[in-house]
Amino acid sequence: MDAEGKKHSLRMINYGLYIVTAKENNEVAAGTINWLSQASFTPPLVMVGIKADSHLHTVIQHRGQFAVSILDQSQKALAQDFFRPSTYDGLLLSGHATDPGPTTGAPILKETPGWFEVEVRQAISIGDHTVYIAEVVDAGVRDKAAIPLVMRETGWFYGG
Amino acid sequence: MDAEGKKHSLRMINYGLYIVTAKENNEVAAGTINWLSQASFTPPLVMVGIKADSHLHTVIQHRGQFAVSILDQSQKALAQDFFRPSTYDGLLLSGHATDPGPTTGAPILKETPGWFEVEVRQAISIGDHTVYIAEVVDAGVRDKAAIPLVMRETGWFYGG
Repeated sequence: MDAEGKKHSLRMINYGLYIVTAKENNEVAAGTINWLSQASFTPPLVMVGIKADSHLHTVIQHRGQFAVSILDQSQKALAQDFFRPSTYDGLLLSGHATDPGPTTGAPILKETPGWFEVEVRQAISIGDHTVYIAEVVDAGVRDKAAIPLVMRETGWFYGG
Repeated sequence: MDAEGKKHSLRMINYGLYIVTAKENNEVAAGTINWLSQASFTPPLVMVGIKADSHLHTVIQHRGQFAVSILDQSQKALAQDFFRPSTYDGLLLSGHATDPGPTTGAPILKETPGWFEVEVRQAISIGDHTVYIAEVVDAGVRDKAAIPLVMRETGWFYGG
């Protein structure tokens, strides 16, 4: 296989950016991710790739649930905040206000336009990321008119 | 769960648009899809949701391989051509020139900026779409400077 062709063609896939959070007992993990897509209408499923050697992965494996906060086009800086290990103090996640997810307890960022919570139905571990097939069990929208962030417009790539 | 919240939050996920093709013996299937993401760097995996009751699904199930042609921002009309059942005559796929994929034999659209071919490693059938976890086995790029189509900019939605 042409390695350059593989890198460039896979980088042509378009993505949004999302902050995934999980909470098990007093342990909270968070991270910015882009490998996420819907996977079924009925039941409502998503498929999400999470780096297998990450703290976020550990907490999701234990809990079997997580939350997704969807970033608006104006929130590139917020995405960047969750490239680093996060802190959770009161309801402040790395300094950002959150609400506990009604179903998962995972912190949901108040300043994002929409969110959903999922329960893992299957975890497939054949690559360097685990693919979670997960059912949407709760969701909410704060700003229906929001235009979600397109990863390409940030100049970042995670893929190839 | 708030049905409106679910619909609107899931529609905030950003996607590109892709033409997926598969060929088994003389049978060719094609369709425009958006539920696609990378899922691993090593090995290079993608995860793709394909409608379970579609002809494309039938051919992928038999063949275990398929090809993905990536649409440029100028190719909304091309995306629309593959919402309908396709024809394959010579190397013309619904009237568009193709090359046979070097590994899968599936037709790859000549006018798209990039493509890759995959072999299915796992098929997960717990929703109304099958999730294929598939390894990228061949790939090529014709226009490195292309800006791939963002589904939101077409005004179409497939999700929610």
